[in-house]
Amino acid sequence: MPSPVIIAVAITGSVPRKADNPALPVTPAEQIESTHAAFEAGATLVHIHVRAPDETPSSDPNLFRQVQEGVRRHCPGMIVQFSTGGRGRTPAQRSAALEFRPDMASLSTGSVNFPSIVYENQPPLVDELAGKMKLHGVKPEIEVFDLSHIHGAKRLVEAGLMDRHAHLQFVLGVKNAMPAIERLLKVLVEEARTALPDMTWTAAGIGRHQSEVADWALALGGHIRT
Amino acid sequence: MPSPVIIAVAITGSVPRKADNPALPVTPAEQIESTHAAFEAGATLVHIHVRAPDETPSSDPNLFRQVQEGVRRHCPGMIVQFSTGGRGRTPAQRSAALEFRPDMASLSTGSVNFPSIVYENQPPLVDELAGKMKLHGVKPEIEVFDLSHIHGAKRLVEAGLMDRHAHLQFVLGVKNAMPAIERLLKVLVEEARTALPDMTWTAAGIGRHQSEVADWALALGGHIRT
Ligand SMILES: [Zn+2]
Ligand SMILES: [Zn+2]
Ligand SMILES: [Zn+2]
Ligand SMILES: [Zn+2]
Repeated sequence: MPSPVIIAVAITGSVPRKADNPALPVTPAEQIESTHAAFEAGATLVHIHVRAPDETPSSDPNLFRQVQEGVRRHCPGMIVQFSTGGRGRTPAQRSAALEFRPDMASLSTGSVNFPSIVYENQPPLVDELAGKMKLHGVKPEIEVFDLSHIHGAKRLVEAGLMDRHAHLQFVLGVKNAMPAIERLLKVLVEEARTALPDMTWTAAGIGRHQSEVADWALALGGHIRT
Repeated sequence: MPSPVIIAVAITGSVPRKADNPALPVTPAEQIESTHAAFEAGATLVHIHVRAPDETPSSDPNLFRQVQEGVRRHCPGMIVQFSTGGRGRTPAQRSAALEFRPDMASLSTGSVNFPSIVYENQPPLVDELAGKMKLHGVKPEIEVFDLSHIHGAKRLVEAGLMDRHAHLQFVLGVKNAMPAIERLLKVLVEEARTALPDMTWTAAGIGRHQSEVADWALALGGHIRT
């Protein structure tokens, strides 16, 4: 499967605060400049969360729009990916920014335990997010936190809510979800290749697992995310 | 791994109503008699949910106690297993009947999507249920609805909340959770054997998948549940 390696960057997650890392980009202007720096260093995809001025996770679609516009201006050709993740957002708020037609958006196809909460992706919400992505021409990145989530993606393809050339990201090393073990990544990749033969994939290790998961993913023929 | 085959019976789940099946045992007396019939037909374990008089799922510990007492009287040697499942119960209510010291109780070690809801097993609740089972000498049956739940069980062993001779049940065929595919059962069994070498296991296929999953489980060296 010879395809170019995508170097992705998640400029601002949903958890850390400036108190943890003073360099954390929080405002749209800071996020745009941080993305530009990563772009110049070779990153080709940016995964976007936005924050309110008090640094809590925001669901304001206008913040997503501002970051997208800035990235498009400063980083020509870079792939813009919006998060539709749940932290600090109601189910209805999670799809609100899709109307701005980013190139991609994250999409979780199942529920799973996270370090201190249940990451809830209710079955009707999964369908709604996929349907809105299809409507607005946004390519989903399926966030696979557990084995059944691959089959959640397959159900979307079968329901006509997603193209069979699905893109999956296997996320390892989240406490209470999938541990960062190479054997488990192999299991996930093998099942995805069987269930969704036309898929492409990346893998992400959280925190201290980032570089080992990137190594395993490259060895198995996947892309990486930094 | 030569061990006797356990024939288990789940006399009353949490969903069907007498309107669906007039023979459904709902009162403790009905549940005891239905269990007795299954015992005489060879069943050696009974998995118990209880219902309120209006047939909705109940969390009344006294109903669990009544069914347990009747089963012990009518079915000597039968293994009594209480459900600690979530349907119709608050997290606090799910552990209430454990003080009556059934032989076993079900324990989910992760969250997952079900046909129409998120089956929520919050990380602190999982620890609390395991801790109460240990306190009361109740052996958990780990309900594995997804791959990460095996590692949820492993974390309980490592935390000293569960014996390393864990008993797992792989549940296949629940819509939006793990599909009933033999390849997936093999993946789960293999991972459990690697992560928890001292475990024993059964497999259950839901609804129309019951007999095929039982066949796969026997072929793979597991027990079955009817
Ligand atoms: Zn710039
Ligand atoms: Zn994200
Ligand atoms: Zn009797
Ligand atoms: Zn049950």
